[in-house]
Amino acid sequence: MKLMHYTDETPKRIDNEVAKGVSARLLIGKNDGADHFCMRLFQLDPGGHTPLHRHEWEHEIFFHQGEGEIFLGDAWKKVNEGTAAFVPGHLDHQIRNTGDGVLSFVCLIPSGYPEL
Amino acid sequence: MKLMHYTDETPKRIDNEVAKGVSARLLIGKNDGADHFCMRLFQLDPGGHTPLHRHEWEHEIFFHQGEGEIFLGDAWKKVNEGTAAFVPGHLDHQIRNTGDGVLSFVCLIPSGYPEL
Repeated sequence: MKLMHYTDETPKRIDNEVAKGVSARLLIGKNDGADHFCMRLFQLDPGGHTPLHRHEWEHEIFFHQGEGEIFLGDAWKKVNEGTAAFVPGHLDHQIRNTGDGVLSFVCLIPSGYPEL
Repeated sequence: MKLMHYTDETPKRIDNEVAKGVSARLLIGKNDGADHFCMRLFQLDPGGHTPLHRHEWEHEIFFHQGEGEIFLGDAWKKVNEGTAAFVPGHLDHQIRNTGDGVLSFVCLIPSGYPEL
């Protein structure tokens, strides 16, 4: 079992050609005994964004805080606190923060792929 | 793909001998194409609680809002906004709201078990 506050985990910062202002944390994964799927928390700074990409595994996302947009396939759509998104495998997707505060969301993926 | 706000889904109310003041929603499941795990949102009224129980599947939980406690195996521990919990299979567990507002959390389980 595991019980932690997300701030207990030091974030990995991602700031490069394709992603901007991202703090990423693995909250629950294989090392905790989670064999079926893992939970990550992402926080985007105002103006930050994840990369536009696609991959074979799916995402299940719950937006915890903030305001932003998600690109799903062919269009941007608004998200805010309490939005849930299912991104199937092989779909182009990206998330960006359009608000003044941090945009936080948990994003879960099946086991067998890079956890973070 | 799916994009929704949790309030788009009508909650199932659970109020019985073993659970009190619980609103439960399936956010992402098999009908959405999610084949590996599913996401549910639970909200506990002040004073509300889930049942004390155990089962073979695990939980991955992220506390979205409120204040409460989780029973894990043999003790109650505090949780609040931003707490993450991994409850392995076969472990006794229960969640209760000890705050003045609603306690909200997403709870994910692997596919193959009752989604709600």
